[in-house]
Amino acid sequence: MAADSGRAVILLSGGLDSATALAWARERGYQCYALSVAYGQRHDAELAAAARVARALGAAEHRVMHVDLGSLGGSALTDTAIAVPENGGAGIPVTYVPARNTVLLSLSLAWAEVLGAMAIVIGVNAVDYSGYPDCRPEFIAAFGQLARLATKAAVEGQSLNVLAPLLSMSKDEIVREGLRLGVDYALTVSCYQADGEGRACGRCDACRLRRQGFEAAGMADPTRYA
Amino acid sequence: MAADSGRAVILLSGGLDSATALAWARERGYQCYALSVAYGQRHDAELAAAARVARALGAAEHRVMHVDLGSLGGSALTDTAIAVPENGGAGIPVTYVPARNTVLLSLSLAWAEVLGAMAIVIGVNAVDYSGYPDCRPEFIAAFGQLARLATKAAVEGQSLNVLAPLLSMSKDEIVREGLRLGVDYALTVSCYQADGEGRACGRCDACRLRRQGFEAAGMADPTRYA
Repeated sequence: MAADSGRAVILLSGGLDSATALAWARERGYQCYALSVAYGQRHDAELAAAARVARALGAAEHRVMHVDLGSLGGSALTDTAIAVPENGGAGIPVTYVPARNTVLLSLSLAWAEVLGAMAIVIGVNAVDYSGYPDCRPEFIAAFGQLARLATKAAVEGQSLNVLAPLLSMSKDEIVREGLRLGVDYALTVSCYQADGEGRACGRCDACRLRRQGFEAAGMADPTRYA
Repeated sequence: MAADSGRAVILLSGGLDSATALAWARERGYQCYALSVAYGQRHDAELAAAARVARALGAAEHRVMHVDLGSLGGSALTDTAIAVPENGGAGIPVTYVPARNTVLLSLSLAWAEVLGAMAIVIGVNAVDYSGYPDCRPEFIAAFGQLARLATKAAVEGQSLNVLAPLLSMSKDEIVREGLRLGVDYALTVSCYQADGEGRACGRCDACRLRRQGFEAAGMADPTRYA
């Protein structure tokens, strides 16, 4: 695969998708700066997973930034008064966190600017999360356009690309790509309500999609279930 | 002036521009939700000023969110190792905070989404801050485009406008407009290195622009200088 050069900021939640995105960026030749954001998510076992994944995949640095997005409420992921759904359903799920990906991308833009990075990598995919407005290809494109105008580097003529390599992949394609890239998925946590040890509930939407991904890929599921 | 309806989130730093933007939004008929962000700025006397301004201008709510943007470094406003310049100069000033307005607008988008607000108001202007990439009209337009794609409301067909009423105004025009709208500028703090009591240094770029604004408007300067 063609090697890109320079630094990249990779948004790393500690879940399956972002771990795969990090492995992808490493294979592309980027020096990888992994950014996790503590935004008040109830599943902060993910943050411990992010640290393990960043280490295992050779990130140059792993940083955790804090923003109290959870204080705004409005999502089952940050508000313990809203139950995490366990049976799918139509429409935008209550696990949607208002403007989360906009905030996460903004923070990675800030770090990218300080680092002089050439790329921001986000592991969103539009296939399995079609209910989330900020996982759509047009949203990613609009943020890319914003990034090209927002920074000092932009004014000085440098380009900064926003890359979403998993955007059009299904979960089983992501799993296969990650395994090819050497991702140890046992290190990752996708569950919306993992316990303190990072063990998955096996019932929430994130768990169901993840399990189906391994099944459809014909691969053993290394997830630690509670 | 025609009255708009509904809620608006107003980014309120506690400085002269954002106070004027809040007064403008109130006159437009919006129910105003003022958002201040503690991002590690060294001049956090501004946050106390923001609380005073929000109260004086009848904001429905004033909220302070926290994000550790300062930990990334790269700006004289967040890094005490970098001196605040006191003599102007060419190019993008060291007081520029990487991706700050992108982060601030993202956080207001999150709150706007939870509130069901119709508008986000930001008091940037391109005239006196032409050195900052994220104060340019094309940046504001790009964020508006992003906001129209990023949210649950957007998917459901509601519009959310990003308004920058001061964008093409000079500092003295802003001062005149604010005074017409009843802003008490003695409550505001613009200085990049105000002391703990909110008294201005009188020498930094923000102080110089502000003082020139009052002079050019032919108005008494109510700023408290140290």
